[in-house]
Amino acid sequence: MLNEVEPIMRITDIIRKKRDGFALSKEEIEFFINGCVNNEIADYQTSALLMAIYFNDMDERETVDLTMAMLNSGDKVDLSQIDGVKVDKHSTGGVGDKTTLVAAPIAAACGVKIAKMSGRGLGHTGGTVDKLESIPNLRTDINGKEFFDIVNRTGICVTGQSGNLCPADKILYGLRDVTQTVDKICLIASSIMSKKLACGSDRILLDVKTGSGAFMKDFNDAKRLAELMVKIGNSSGKKTKALITDMDIPLGNAIGNSLEVIEAVDTLCGNGPEDLEQVCVELAANMIFLAEGADLENCRSRAVQAIENGSALEKLAQMVEAQGGDKNYVYDTKRFKRADFVRQVKSPADGYIVKLDAERCGTASVHLGAGREKKEDKIDFAAGIFLNRKTGDRVSKGDTIATLYSEHKEYLDSAEKELLSSFSFGDAPPKAKPHILASVE
Amino acid sequence: MLNEVEPIMRITDIIRKKRDGFALSKEEIEFFINGCVNNEIADYQTSALLMAIYFNDMDERETVDLTMAMLNSGDKVDLSQIDGVKVDKHSTGGVGDKTTLVAAPIAAACGVKIAKMSGRGLGHTGGTVDKLESIPNLRTDINGKEFFDIVNRTGICVTGQSGNLCPADKILYGLRDVTQTVDKICLIASSIMSKKLACGSDRILLDVKTGSGAFMKDFNDAKRLAELMVKIGNSSGKKTKALITDMDIPLGNAIGNSLEVIEAVDTLCGNGPEDLEQVCVELAANMIFLAEGADLENCRSRAVQAIENGSALEKLAQMVEAQGGDKNYVYDTKRFKRADFVRQVKSPADGYIVKLDAERCGTASVHLGAGREKKEDKIDFAAGIFLNRKTGDRVSKGDTIATLYSEHKEYLDSAEKELLSSFSFGDAPPKAKPHILASVE
Repeated sequence: MLNEVEPIMRITDIIRKKRDGFALSKEEIEFFINGCVNNEIADYQTSALLMAIYFNDMDERETVDLTMAMLNSGDKVDLSQIDGVKVDKHSTGGVGDKTTLVAAPIAAACGVKIAKMSGRGLGHTGGTVDKLESIPNLRTDINGKEFFDIVNRTGICVTGQSGNLCPADKILYGLRDVTQTVDKICLIASSIMSKKLACGSDRILLDVKTGSGAFMKDFNDAKRLAELMVKIGNSSGKKTKALITDMDIPLGNAIGNSLEVIEAVDTLCGNGPEDLEQVCVELAANMIFLAEGADLENCRSRAVQAIENGSALEKLAQMVEAQGGDKNYVYDTKRFKRADFVRQVKSPADGYIVKLDAERCGTASVHLGAGREKKEDKIDFAAGIFLNRKTGDRVSKGDTIATLYSEHKEYLDSAEKELLSSFSFGDAPPKAKPHILASVE
Repeated sequence: MLNEVEPIMRITDIIRKKRDGFALSKEEIEFFINGCVNNEIADYQTSALLMAIYFNDMDERETVDLTMAMLNSGDKVDLSQIDGVKVDKHSTGGVGDKTTLVAAPIAAACGVKIAKMSGRGLGHTGGTVDKLESIPNLRTDINGKEFFDIVNRTGICVTGQSGNLCPADKILYGLRDVTQTVDKICLIASSIMSKKLACGSDRILLDVKTGSGAFMKDFNDAKRLAELMVKIGNSSGKKTKALITDMDIPLGNAIGNSLEVIEAVDTLCGNGPEDLEQVCVELAANMIFLAEGADLENCRSRAVQAIENGSALEKLAQMVEAQGGDKNYVYDTKRFKRADFVRQVKSPADGYIVKLDAERCGTASVHLGAGREKKEDKIDFAAGIFLNRKTGDRVSKGDTIATLYSEHKEYLDSAEKELLSSFSFGDAPPKAKPHILASVE
């Protein structure tokens, strides 16, 4: 009888094994993930196992097996109808992170194929799909043949997720979110990488954020996460590289959907904030590097050139048009609707801005209507914050340090209070920090 | 506003606090327990917290607070209508553990009031309620005024649980059972003690079993559990004492419901197995000691005397009659129906019995129909095992070492196989072990 040869697996035995500090086998991990998706394992057992994993961790082999089991739990996007090398880019999320809107068009202008699925914003971080939708009529529900056609024709398409990708990750993430098991590097890595692998690109560039506005507050945690994700990507046959970039303060000056699109366009025109331009050029250069295996310094020059010769801006405009949007918004950002209510936030002190808490800036932006506290919340595209001054700047009392935008006058007070609490002032300028902290490959 | 003074509690914050190794406050523990009972906290959050408790433990103060919160989650039995000092006795469960049927009548014969709620058997351990029900017509659904009246009249009543006692414990135990969080001393102690305190007696004697047939396989774990439960009992104002007794081998020779009642009667007649008599006399003496605060040696003499003068047997007969059973079964145990199928198990070897695994004996008894694998299972009262030989006995190949009883011929083979696997044989007698290992007060 089969049962005498292969003993029946039981989730309780798997929980005990992890509880007692042992590594789970590939078969046990697959049994767990399949059981979650098939509703054969109860949520309370899954959450108990997740907490046991929180305490006793998973080793690299287990994390790879977990990633693959989640990847195999649902649909996988097949991009083989798109010619050329497809490179995906993923950011672990931050405040004012509009890098996809800049780096992807640059890379596409340099010949890299970008067939990208992006997400929406939640909590203090924004999402590329929301930002794109601030361009009137632009569609983010593009998939299948239309998606392939746009990428083959223009080289780039950025759309929302479709299909039943990684249903196991959705279940696990939903439970982790309400059981304090989010902050575990093996679980974060497998969650991100299962989705990235399901999206079907050939190469993956990861932008792992660290600092006050990032999930990974600590650089060493960010580095461990980056190393683990690069290992997972490479071990599944997809060349993967990670940059670790600073998210201690917001990236660029704009936070909020259309405000960020405008800033992205400015950057593609060569008029963007220095930190944003530097990070985007490095990301784009690494996307080209991953696609072609060329010399990285040469890739950097090509990325800069794509800004200087206008080809990157042109690529964004092509993409916007292909996705149903009005490309004139790219060429003339004054077309974007301005929020009905604007308030200038004044410095309460003389001195240097020594700290600017990115997470609080993000929360203030949510208060203004630019983000979501819950998945169901609606967002106002024109709402958000423009940071007139940032960490390191010298200010006098009464100077405008930020400008708030909202469609609701009554949102301004609480947002101003929250935003002001994110600024710290001091007598001496803080030590300047690099924007790009490390790379892992 | 209230919310500004007292911040709203959230279960996720409580999970994180325990996950990060901090002690939970009394208010947090009450919030958790009330949330479980009111269905405001999801099972998957409860199980995540239980797993965090498994890893990071609870200190004594937390365990007391958890016990009290579970106690206060439901009804509490008020025994004030019963005159005198009521003493409860609880065993952590074992194989062949018929001590309540012996010790409680002895103590009652010595003037202690016994108003006891007992449980049913599950898995390899039996339950007093099942054993009592093997006496025809005996009722175990006695409660309220009838319960008080019987105890006032006869000094003793042993019934099944009624009322909504500790609903929080039922929820927690149900989840622990399927999430590998049963084996945690703080959780075991609070589960047992909340129920004992809810049952309303004034004093509590705990019989903490240790050895192969007990939950606490290790003596030191049993001692820690005993110490913790004694502290919980005393801190709630109920004088509590614990004995730690051996459950490495079954207690007495009989396993199975009517077989155990017969052996209990034999013991009350002074003809019981030595280990059972010794443990029961010590338990009864300690119940008298708890009730009266008298000299323990004197309590032992009175317990022995109650056997010798027949008053303890008479007390059992009175109790059986008061609960609707036929007391003639006590005076003449041949009246009990004998199982239809009987098999003698022969020794496969010459030598000494050096080990007798109590848990396997219990499992063999379940195979014979004497116990339950699932709560819904029916049991056969006459089924079970009589151990003709036990650890330390010298046997020759072919000697009868045990007798199996079942109402189903087809159950005998697997039970015999299981039972034989519980015996180990050797050339030299094993070191004799004491039956009573320690006491804690």
